Amino acid sequence: MKYCSECGAPVQLRVPTDDDRPRYICDGCGRIHYENPKMVVGCVPEWEDRILLCRRNIEPQKDLWTLPAGYLENGEGVADGARRETLEESGAIVDHLEPYLLIDIVHIRQIYLMFRGRMQTPEFKVTPESAEVVLMREDQIPWDQLAFRAIEKTLRYYFRDRAEGRFPFRVRPVGKRD
Amino acid sequence: MKYCSECGAPVQLRVPTDDDRPRYICDGCGRIHYENPKMVVGCVPEWEDRILLCRRNIEPQKDLWTLPAGYLENGEGVADGARRETLEESGAIVDHLEPYLLIDIVHIRQIYLMFRGRMQTPEFKVTPESAEVVLMREDQIPWDQLAFRAIEKTLRYYFRDRAEGRFPFRVRPVGKRD
Repeated sequence: MKYCSECGAPVQLRVPTDDDRPRYICDGCGRIHYENPKMVVGCVPEWEDRILLCRRNIEPQKDLWTLPAGYLENGEGVADGARRETLEESGAIVDHLEPYLLIDIVHIRQIYLMFRGRMQTPEFKVTPESAEVVLMREDQIPWDQLAFRAIEKTLRYYFRDRAEGRFPFRVRPVGKRD
Repeated sequence: MKYCSECGAPVQLRVPTDDDRPRYICDGCGRIHYENPKMVVGCVPEWEDRILLCRRNIEPQKDLWTLPAGYLENGEGVADGARRETLEESGAIVDHLEPYLLIDIVHIRQIYLMFRGRMQTPEFKVTPESAEVVLMREDQIPWDQLAFRAIEKTLRYYFRDRAEGRFPFRVRPVGKRD
């Protein structure tokens, strides 16, 4: 951030009065610009013993596999966001969304909130965001071609929990790649 | 938003190519400025059969009662943020944080994530943000003097769940006041 989004004057990074960390502060109007982590909402779409994965058609991580997920928008609830992303990326309609895993990714300022969701029908399709969309059994998951560590983490927990017949909600961190 | 935070040129609100909702786009450098909901993290600090409430010493809702909660900062995990807010607002140190309730507040673009946390000791204090800090039993909660609807919702679930001896994780909306 270099300029104030409200008045266009330059901003400076300094600690405001009564605060304890640096913020961008406008030299002109004095406004303090707070920056905060962004929330990514996503879904494990379930159909019988299979789940729906998408091969990304866009950067970053184009051609690698992922679960439907994307930034939560203003004006929508977290489950609605996960449902929207699932529809946009895979064409699938999910309902009965259950919150499943929250992942802190501190170094990139993201929080993933992943749901489990039941596909209403086994219908899905290629979309502008996904070059391939496939219902996979556990033994078909391309573990070495997953796009993001948060997605790998979600899938690891998912199959372990499914084997035990329970899906407790968890908060877990994901760090940088080694 | 009126100006680009990167180059200082005016922005316009319009729908970018391959998008479906209006964003602020810079006339100069072409950057798209996405705006997303912010996450508030907080805690129900527990000591034996009591919980810790704070009377706000700052606006908004000055003089009304709340649980410790505030914006998640860049660079911190959600549980760390809840722990920090608890310390800043009440002087209490909590551990064993358990995720408890996620609240969508769509109309103000906030997501509350409330934890339950065990106070290490029954120590706490008045802080710059809290004019009073009090350990309360259920029958002492000032239901008609709570600062925010998300806090009221959290406390309603909390005492109901505690009576039943179980604290399932939930996602719930909070709407505008009537």
